[in-house]
Amino acid sequence: MKKQKPALLKGTRDFAPEVMIKRNFILDQIKDTFRKYGFLPLETPSIERLDVLTGKYGEEGDQLIFKILNSGDFLDKIAEQELAEGYKKLIPKISKRALRYDLTVPFARFVSMNRGEINFPFKRFQIQPVWRGDRPQKGRYQEFYQCDADVVGTNSLLCEAEIILMIHEVFARLGIQNYDLKINNRKILSGLAEIMDEKDRQGDLFVALDKLDKIGLEQVIEELKNKGFSDQALAHLEPVLNPSEQGQLDYLKTAFQHSEVGQKGIQEIEEIMQLVSTYTGESNLTETHHLQLDLTLARGLTYYTGAIFEVKSTEVSIGSLVGGGRYDDLTGIFGLPDMSGVGFSFGIDRLYDVMDELGLFPEDAGLSTHVMFVNFDENAQNYILPLLHKFRQAGLNCEIYPEAAKLKKQMNYANAKQIPYVILVGSEEMQTNKLSLKNMESGEQQKLTYAEIITQLKEQLL
Amino acid sequence: MKKQKPALLKGTRDFAPEVMIKRNFILDQIKDTFRKYGFLPLETPSIERLDVLTGKYGEEGDQLIFKILNSGDFLDKIAEQELAEGYKKLIPKISKRALRYDLTVPFARFVSMNRGEINFPFKRFQIQPVWRGDRPQKGRYQEFYQCDADVVGTNSLLCEAEIILMIHEVFARLGIQNYDLKINNRKILSGLAEIMDEKDRQGDLFVALDKLDKIGLEQVIEELKNKGFSDQALAHLEPVLNPSEQGQLDYLKTAFQHSEVGQKGIQEIEEIMQLVSTYTGESNLTETHHLQLDLTLARGLTYYTGAIFEVKSTEVSIGSLVGGGRYDDLTGIFGLPDMSGVGFSFGIDRLYDVMDELGLFPEDAGLSTHVMFVNFDENAQNYILPLLHKFRQAGLNCEIYPEAAKLKKQMNYANAKQIPYVILVGSEEMQTNKLSLKNMESGEQQKLTYAEIITQLKEQLL
Repeated sequence: MKKQKPALLKGTRDFAPEVMIKRNFILDQIKDTFRKYGFLPLETPSIERLDVLTGKYGEEGDQLIFKILNSGDFLDKIAEQELAEGYKKLIPKISKRALRYDLTVPFARFVSMNRGEINFPFKRFQIQPVWRGDRPQKGRYQEFYQCDADVVGTNSLLCEAEIILMIHEVFARLGIQNYDLKINNRKILSGLAEIMDEKDRQGDLFVALDKLDKIGLEQVIEELKNKGFSDQALAHLEPVLNPSEQGQLDYLKTAFQHSEVGQKGIQEIEEIMQLVSTYTGESNLTETHHLQLDLTLARGLTYYTGAIFEVKSTEVSIGSLVGGGRYDDLTGIFGLPDMSGVGFSFGIDRLYDVMDELGLFPEDAGLSTHVMFVNFDENAQNYILPLLHKFRQAGLNCEIYPEAAKLKKQMNYANAKQIPYVILVGSEEMQTNKLSLKNMESGEQQKLTYAEIITQLKEQLL
Repeated sequence: MKKQKPALLKGTRDFAPEVMIKRNFILDQIKDTFRKYGFLPLETPSIERLDVLTGKYGEEGDQLIFKILNSGDFLDKIAEQELAEGYKKLIPKISKRALRYDLTVPFARFVSMNRGEINFPFKRFQIQPVWRGDRPQKGRYQEFYQCDADVVGTNSLLCEAEIILMIHEVFARLGIQNYDLKINNRKILSGLAEIMDEKDRQGDLFVALDKLDKIGLEQVIEELKNKGFSDQALAHLEPVLNPSEQGQLDYLKTAFQHSEVGQKGIQEIEEIMQLVSTYTGESNLTETHHLQLDLTLARGLTYYTGAIFEVKSTEVSIGSLVGGGRYDDLTGIFGLPDMSGVGFSFGIDRLYDVMDELGLFPEDAGLSTHVMFVNFDENAQNYILPLLHKFRQAGLNCEIYPEAAKLKKQMNYANAKQIPYVILVGSEEMQTNKLSLKNMESGEQQKLTYAEIITQLKEQLL
């Protein structure tokens, strides 16, 4: 066979063990938190019917979906004339499978298909990769994990309150201290469109507001003017958009006298905050839970209809770490109407980068093998193997270097693998049954029986 | 938007929470065991360069690899004439990405690419889905998980011995008691080919032997005769193939007088067994470790060169549950020669089916939410929320039903989710601060303070 130079596709990554261990640390904190709040795991296939995915993400999204060539002779039933009609028309004829683009559409498909068996309200979390044909660049990949949790089948605002609690718990577990948990409500934005007399163009309003962070206030106003919003309409925006302005909410309460949806939005926000206070006994949620009402928060997705959330680091400039919101109609497209729910999603790659940059991974997050036995020779090996078995029976992760290599090579191996303890067994150790336990960080060495070592390591590492 | 009937692709599956929890139980036992023996996790991308995968799995395998259409106008640079040359030639022109077909080739690619940074001997495990365009049928999927562990960069037979110990530990943890762990060595089979004077056709011999289980002794002999093996050559097979025959190994020791490779194979098998005995202090490994020398075991893969393993249930007829073996040259194709290693792989779907059929999943394997608070009304809800917060702070998984629905509906929810305890809070409970804790299995009900309940549930469930 011809030899080839091995390479990765652009926009894809290997996760080597030292990275996996840290990623798993993050995922374990998130999964534990989800379970603590009654969410259960779900997995859907990576490959879905192309027609299940098409038409759900806009035209641009459809372009970015990876399509899989039909097996066998995919050209078999394609007439010459069809080939000439261009690639867009050809796609559904030569591809019936596609790679998952997000976790929401497969979740909606699952809920619709299994409506009869699902125990509603259905609380599920789902942590799986998704694929997008975006142009790869720093921090943007063609394959990346999403980490979603949703409750569907209830309007209860307890769900929103618990999402705030879960975000708070995950960030506390990860040790990320400096962040804003921004909250808004699509109904407030709808009310704003209503009092601006721009109800029909509320989509444009949301899209423009969503860019506030990136392009700034002036450009947002400019964009809206270009879309045809009047100065009179835009006057209503100012007290809301100007971040130095206090009493935004009070302004809106007055302004929303004739907007039912706007009033409902404010009422929901206040109820959610009240619920979080009831849970925690805390009244200053900005201080304790980093909670910030941000009336400019819009979130990009079109299907949100109620509360929306976003978390940003205030230390590392990296985009949102968490996003989410309530929707009224998850599954209508699949023939199951009025399925309301609320969901949120952690950005694993960004959380990883923030923790890495701030040095927040605990030292033992990466701890895997607890102790390594050095392999001097066959004699020592025969002495060690039954002990190794006992160490493992005691629940310790351990290994023996598989060959009687040079001591330096073996120590380098232990160092590179960040194994905290090494045990050396030479002729003296075998005679006295006292093994040399070396702490790889301090260099300190102790002589102990195997049973003493097991007790000490269990206490310290398990 | 047009409504559509949601459907799954044939050969793919959703894993609903009740299935996920049981699958995770199996995977957790396996991962814990891998870690206990010093293996660390690795993940590679689902999508690889098509040319990295092509040519590694034989012509049939190449056909079964799922190819991904290039993004954008994939026909852009294709001349009409190229379209007429047939689909096989067209594939590399319109597809540069493909879905992973197994975990071995991506692992080899990873090792070759990162040879400079890897800490050898490299012990990694990898649990990820793979995709194959096989015709879907019962028990055969187009998307399924593989679960591999390998050590590369050492010839030490300690690795083979530890694989036997790991298999033993995983099966003990899963509660699967009736199985055979078959072991053989490709060198023995090579020796056999040598004394049959059929060295050049040893590939044919392995392929035929591999079918022994499925097609029986007579057909294997028939197949070899058709391939041109002489009666004289086949006479050497009989003492080995006949399962009633005792002393196979003794026969071979004599027969291998002039086969160096055959002798080496026997010596390796004996050394591996000796090592397992040294670890465990057990001498009858057939009894304690289900170990069976099976000289007819061949395993399909062409790249094995040393010990080979296979585990089969002796209760459930379902094919092999574990397979593996040693290879001499994992990465030669990628320009890194002489990378020896040994690996093995658990069949997760089959393990699941065996455990399901034998009823081996422990009752609390599926335990996720520990306790649910019934939601009677807003009054009770306000009383419950701070307690719920305390329960969670104590580490318990718990939820409140998000709406004040009918009691029956709430109890049905708890039942369907297999939540073992429910707490009822009515006016009496709020007055006395004694909550009603209901055991959902026995129906038994107790009145306790919240602190007493936390203590009791922690003791019982954590």
